[in-house]
Amino acid sequence: MKLLEDGVPLAELSIERIARTAGVGKATIYRRWSGKEELFVDVLRAAEPVDPELPGTSLRDDLVALLESLRRRGLARRASVILHNVHAQMKSSPKIWAAYRDTVVLPRRRLGLEVLRRGRENGELRADVDLELLHDIVVGPLLVRTLLRPDAGLPDGLAEQVVDTLLQGLRPAP
Amino acid sequence: MKLLEDGVPLAELSIERIARTAGVGKATIYRRWSGKEELFVDVLRAAEPVDPELPGTSLRDDLVALLESLRRRGLARRASVILHNVHAQMKSSPKIWAAYRDTVVLPRRRLGLEVLRRGRENGELRADVDLELLHDIVVGPLLVRTLLRPDAGLPDGLAEQVVDTLLQGLRPAP
Repeated sequence: MKLLEDGVPLAELSIERIARTAGVGKATIYRRWSGKEELFVDVLRAAEPVDPELPGTSLRDDLVALLESLRRRGLARRASVILHNVHAQMKSSPKIWAAYRDTVVLPRRRLGLEVLRRGRENGELRADVDLELLHDIVVGPLLVRTLLRPDAGLPDGLAEQVVDTLLQGLRPAP
Repeated sequence: MKLLEDGVPLAELSIERIARTAGVGKATIYRRWSGKEELFVDVLRAAEPVDPELPGTSLRDDLVALLESLRRRGLARRASVILHNVHAQMKSSPKIWAAYRDTVVLPRRRLGLEVLRRGRENGELRADVDLELLHDIVVGPLLVRTLLRPDAGLPDGLAEQVVDTLLQGLRPAP
């Protein structure tokens, strides 16, 4: 984090430099992380808000918790110059991006799919739509706002508003 | 397009080089485009599928036409190495990205908002949700698939499926 705060670009971070800054030997680092990519993803995870506890009370409550955590992550990324730069740079480093995808993005997606699967089994969700597509429908609006529209608002209550609108549908109530 | 096909990076494209390749003088280029950014965005627009004609028969049909055009643009971007590279490079050129946003992204967004506004006035859309948020809800799933999940499917019928699911809502039919 210190090196990132000092503005060292991702490409110039090496295990050697990290070990030197931390005042430890390289072997100490390698005992815990197999490479720079794995270490880096752990640093990034530590800087982001933790993953949500799902209340498990209803499909609606679990979806709100998932989207609220996306909203908070978006706010954190906007507030922290480090997080913002690191995410931007990560895209041009395929190995780090792959490590981040495997250890952060895909587990979150599996959790979301699990919530939807449970909701469908409980009869809280219509049964005729592909779960993968439902997942994109549920996370889409928040991902658009946090990743593609950096100037769009992320107000309190956005997660509830999106989930309730999606559950009820866009047609006027009959 | 010839220079992009030859793999010339965006940063090395200059009006001078474009004029030389086209066998014309620089003045000929400047008569039509005020700079490299404007020319480039026109090239990009010419390479992408044209914007959709809206049928205007119903909110549903207009939304399907809008999402179908997003789907086709996503397919075109995946099929064309040039389009793919150019979009990736564009992100690191703030001036070109701003020109693309102003002349391509924002007009499309205005068109989408206009469709939603008309639908709300006609009573085809619930009246209690912010139009900006509704727009993110409608385009979110397609943007997630085309821009953030390059391996996700973009099958025929996806636009209809998304629009019908959103209009009806995720709850099971009563």
